[in-house]
Amino acid sequence: MEYYSEKINRLIEELGRLPGVGRKSAQRLAFHILSLPKQRVESLAFAIEDAKKSVAYCKECFNLTDRDICPICANPSRNKRIIMVVENPRDLAAYEKTGKFNGVYHVLHGAISPMQGIGPGDIKLKELMLRLQKDVDEVIIATNSSLEGEATAMYISKLVKPAGIKVSRIASGIPVGGDLENIDEVTLLKALDGRVEI
Amino acid sequence: MEYYSEKINRLIEELGRLPGVGRKSAQRLAFHILSLPKQRVESLAFAIEDAKKSVAYCKECFNLTDRDICPICANPSRNKRIIMVVENPRDLAAYEKTGKFNGVYHVLHGAISPMQGIGPGDIKLKELMLRLQKDVDEVIIATNSSLEGEATAMYISKLVKPAGIKVSRIASGIPVGGDLENIDEVTLLKALDGRVEI
Repeated sequence: MEYYSEKINRLIEELGRLPGVGRKSAQRLAFHILSLPKQRVESLAFAIEDAKKSVAYCKECFNLTDRDICPICANPSRNKRIIMVVENPRDLAAYEKTGKFNGVYHVLHGAISPMQGIGPGDIKLKELMLRLQKDVDEVIIATNSSLEGEATAMYISKLVKPAGIKVSRIASGIPVGGDLENIDEVTLLKALDGRVEI
Repeated sequence: MEYYSEKINRLIEELGRLPGVGRKSAQRLAFHILSLPKQRVESLAFAIEDAKKSVAYCKECFNLTDRDICPICANPSRNKRIIMVVENPRDLAAYEKTGKFNGVYHVLHGAISPMQGIGPGDIKLKELMLRLQKDVDEVIIATNSSLEGEATAMYISKLVKPAGIKVSRIASGIPVGGDLENIDEVTLLKALDGRVEI
């Protein structure tokens, strides 16, 4: 490709490897980056390297953090006896944004998926069981409402229940503001099954 | 925001400043970057910094390049007597990909737009006029078919014609494969005006 010089091609190639960034977007991003002031570009490159260098798993909950223990686990006002199990840090953030959950989390970093060759040993399950040896009142399973998420929830509940710890699963149903006519049948049935008296 | 640690927030913020990247995409990109092997992340950060550091304007045509003179201008088999004027390096690349244009380019880095306060002095027009003091047979104006692009084309043609140099404008009309019924009226009229005998 004679039309872009080597370093521009290299940049386009690197950006094009990011998820959801096609060749056209990568070109657009590359030319945008080249048009930025030098200091802004350095700041972007630094943020990328620095985050990668300093971010690791929290030793307690396996959330991503740049400290030993993440701010949530380190917060003395959080209730350590209630653990919400999520698949990844973005799911954790989603619940954290609600501002209503005062327990702590456990990030599995995946879900059991025989189709993709991901077994119980490939996610942070052993680490969850270790945490349960301390005093824990309830494990809330907030894996996704997908096949893999449900299978993982099932698996965890079978592991945890014998220890005499309460296990719960977040509710499936109609999303708030959802129009019944636009909602798939499986969700409609789940919402019916999960109905609560009012 | 307690739910992401500082360095992750910083990365999300930096990514979110890129064009077309909203907060959600920035989060997705950030977690993807954190999940990559260290070496891949360094390679991305390096490509960004290195491109910005080494890429500048070609001294001839103002295309972006990591050399003094871009590969197109440096190519002795290109016809220097035909100059195609484009708004930006991506437009240049679009024509270069056709592989059929054997002249050279001139990149304006913008178009005249009184609405956005961009005048003739804000784009590489003076530089074009300087180039025309050498032997040039034709200036092909390939600015966009937008209001700004057309105004810029008009302006250039008025500047260049008195010098006795042939000035042409790329054709407007129905895109190849385009369905007439889906094409806007202005384009339809332009296609009619620009009809050629067959």
